[in-house]
Amino acid sequence: MTATITTFAWVPEFARGFVRDIRVRWACEEVGQPYAVELIRDAKTPEHRARQPFGQVPTYADDEVELFESGAIALRIAERGDGLLPEDPAARARAVQWLVAALNSVEPWVTQIAVVNLFEADKPWSAMRRDTVIEDLHGRLADLAAALGDKTWLDGDHFTVGDLMMISVLGGLRNTDMLSRYPNLAAYVARGEARPAHRKAMADHLATFADTPAAA
Amino acid sequence: MTATITTFAWVPEFARGFVRDIRVRWACEEVGQPYAVELIRDAKTPEHRARQPFGQVPTYADDEVELFESGAIALRIAERGDGLLPEDPAARARAVQWLVAALNSVEPWVTQIAVVNLFEADKPWSAMRRDTVIEDLHGRLADLAAALGDKTWLDGDHFTVGDLMMISVLGGLRNTDMLSRYPNLAAYVARGEARPAHRKAMADHLATFADTPAAA
Repeated sequence: MTATITTFAWVPEFARGFVRDIRVRWACEEVGQPYAVELIRDAKTPEHRARQPFGQVPTYADDEVELFESGAIALRIAERGDGLLPEDPAARARAVQWLVAALNSVEPWVTQIAVVNLFEADKPWSAMRRDTVIEDLHGRLADLAAALGDKTWLDGDHFTVGDLMMISVLGGLRNTDMLSRYPNLAAYVARGEARPAHRKAMADHLATFADTPAAA
Repeated sequence: MTATITTFAWVPEFARGFVRDIRVRWACEEVGQPYAVELIRDAKTPEHRARQPFGQVPTYADDEVELFESGAIALRIAERGDGLLPEDPAARARAVQWLVAALNSVEPWVTQIAVVNLFEADKPWSAMRRDTVIEDLHGRLADLAAALGDKTWLDGDHFTVGDLMMISVLGGLRNTDMLSRYPNLAAYVARGEARPAHRKAMADHLATFADTPAAA
């Protein structure tokens, strides 16, 4: 069975390497799930909103279900494939816990950095609140670094879909120096991004835009 | 088996009815999972951080695993009990999708309202950005209202853990007029909160603070 995902046919330079289809591609590569990509130009159309109510990407379809939300899609792929969710029920629940932590306890703080630096960079309040946004994110990263400690992955020796999501979220900080205070977190992200499945996913993501202009 | 959750022994008046233990209590009530409550005064201690890296509540423990993240805990309870996750694999995946959507595509926008109105109310930039924060949240709510349409619950006739989480997140807007533009969403939240399991969960949550002062 080949799954189908949707993502953007084009994004501006600053968004390349960050679109959330990477998470789904990465999960597919980790478990060997073949997938086809349907490229769309506009996610705000009624047709696409029927698949993704918020007019975003990616979406996913397999032989059984259509889904949106990269977190739910990654979990779906992990549940149907091998390697991203442990067999042990407790370890499995903790993998889901870290996936949710990435999406709910870390990503919203990462997003605010992009809001002040990028999406609302021209707003008069962004410069004013930048220090607070950075300090709040440092609070989260310090807690996460302490939880990771000297472990290889968040739950120990085994990479899970929870790591996949956390590393994807932290990847949003790639163009900042936010991780430089946390050598263990920086090494953790590098370790995740060095996985062959991530490299393939990122290369395929970037290849989409290889022949397109960087600006609109 | 009786599960154990941790939550705060005391919160100020404005936080009563909003602490995330309600989500876990609600899930337990829906499936008939007995639980005990361990009340803590300070979530930032090393002891509590060993259970919850970000120094927050709730946490959860059953006979098999200890967890944090209300989303992951609700999913755990749903998976072990009956009634919150459909048997049909596709419907089940969509229930998880809506849980993730609540936590990643709606709650961060709801939180920003609390940030400008409450947590950063004294900051000079909060008044400046309030209109944008409200407008952004309206974008999310309008999309969600369109996705709900005239259905009873997000996936149709059956209440799931996805509804539980979405209604809990939207409950964060209780003291605002944000939902007044979306009669179907307001009715959806009211329908969820009228469920006996939610009423019991909320009553038990509020009873914790019945004899304590509203301010520190």
